[in-house]
Amino acid sequence: MEDKEISQAVISRLPRYFRYLGELKDEGIERVSSQELSDIMRVTASQIRQDLNNFGGFGQQGYGYNVGYLYDEIGKILGLHEEHNLIIVGAGHLGQALVNYMNFERRGFIFRGIFDSDERLHGTQIRGITVRPMREMERFVKDNDIDIAVLTIPKSSAVEVAEQLVSCGIKGLWNFAHVDLQVPDDIQVENVHLSDSLMKLSYNLAPHDR
Amino acid sequence: MEDKEISQAVISRLPRYFRYLGELKDEGIERVSSQELSDIMRVTASQIRQDLNNFGGFGQQGYGYNVGYLYDEIGKILGLHEEHNLIIVGAGHLGQALVNYMNFERRGFIFRGIFDSDERLHGTQIRGITVRPMREMERFVKDNDIDIAVLTIPKSSAVEVAEQLVSCGIKGLWNFAHVDLQVPDDIQVENVHLSDSLMKLSYNLAPHDR
Repeated sequence: MEDKEISQAVISRLPRYFRYLGELKDEGIERVSSQELSDIMRVTASQIRQDLNNFGGFGQQGYGYNVGYLYDEIGKILGLHEEHNLIIVGAGHLGQALVNYMNFERRGFIFRGIFDSDERLHGTQIRGITVRPMREMERFVKDNDIDIAVLTIPKSSAVEVAEQLVSCGIKGLWNFAHVDLQVPDDIQVENVHLSDSLMKLSYNLAPHDR
Repeated sequence: MEDKEISQAVISRLPRYFRYLGELKDEGIERVSSQELSDIMRVTASQIRQDLNNFGGFGQQGYGYNVGYLYDEIGKILGLHEEHNLIIVGAGHLGQALVNYMNFERRGFIFRGIFDSDERLHGTQIRGITVRPMREMERFVKDNDIDIAVLTIPKSSAVEVAEQLVSCGIKGLWNFAHVDLQVPDDIQVENVHLSDSLMKLSYNLAPHDR
């Protein structure tokens, strides 16, 4: 099956299905109907069926979905059955927070290296991982089969660092810098723009019946 | 003008307009056409016109947009002309990272208090703000006109804490816990599900021509 045409909107919803199915699984629930899933996830049953049909369905008429099977399959679709090797660029507070967040590792996202331009941090460790100087980054990426780089650096340096990473073979960038990165088409960028998120909340809080 | 019907998709794009206009402004650029804005933002000029028309337009035929004016107006639409009082619940790494991120304060989002259930943290300070016990939270919210609570706590406690916050008058929740919060309709929730974002990146990195 060729599913390159699946919209990013559908893909954005997959981790949420994965999360809810994981919870059902933890509760020992073995099967679920799209209606039941609809009730707990607060999306329509028809949307659930449509979304999952993109990947071949998984459901059986009159039975619903097998929770464990669907959980595993969505995990595979999300690429979670394989390990990802990550580096993090920027050992500030946010970088430290991400390295210390154990859930990523449970899902197969393993932090292999941390890089920072601040000399005072070089040689220090975050959860057992040594902070290295930027000049060692390219070599490290090549030697350690790194596929994802997490950027927790100011926007002033993010563009240049992203270019460097792309040139040494990084395929995915998880970007927390407050800037849109322009990269070749075969490089995947996922942005977490925290300020944008907070501004959206602010908008929704403001009175708009002017 | 009544603009309650403006879609969340449009609203999601507003912070990005705000960011680009801020950069143009910093560069001393006074006016910009929708075509120029389109080129740097990589969205179509027609989308830009459509988005901004939701709020009354702002553009002038043959002139384009006045950068400073549009920046200010979008800022107002986003509610950034008013200060927001925030508390953060959860003084772990992520909570500390957010408190230390100065850009929020520049936009009028002021952290007034930090709360954590860990006794060892009580009385310690993060950027001059004292970490307080959870039992003081409700009183603090009422006494300090807090409108936004940031949840950087595990999902096991997030649901209960959110209910508590809603009951003492919080209007907005910026939720980093890996759970969907069920709150009354007049409470605004903006989620930052970091794991979901990372899984989406993982999906886009995986080969999908099975």
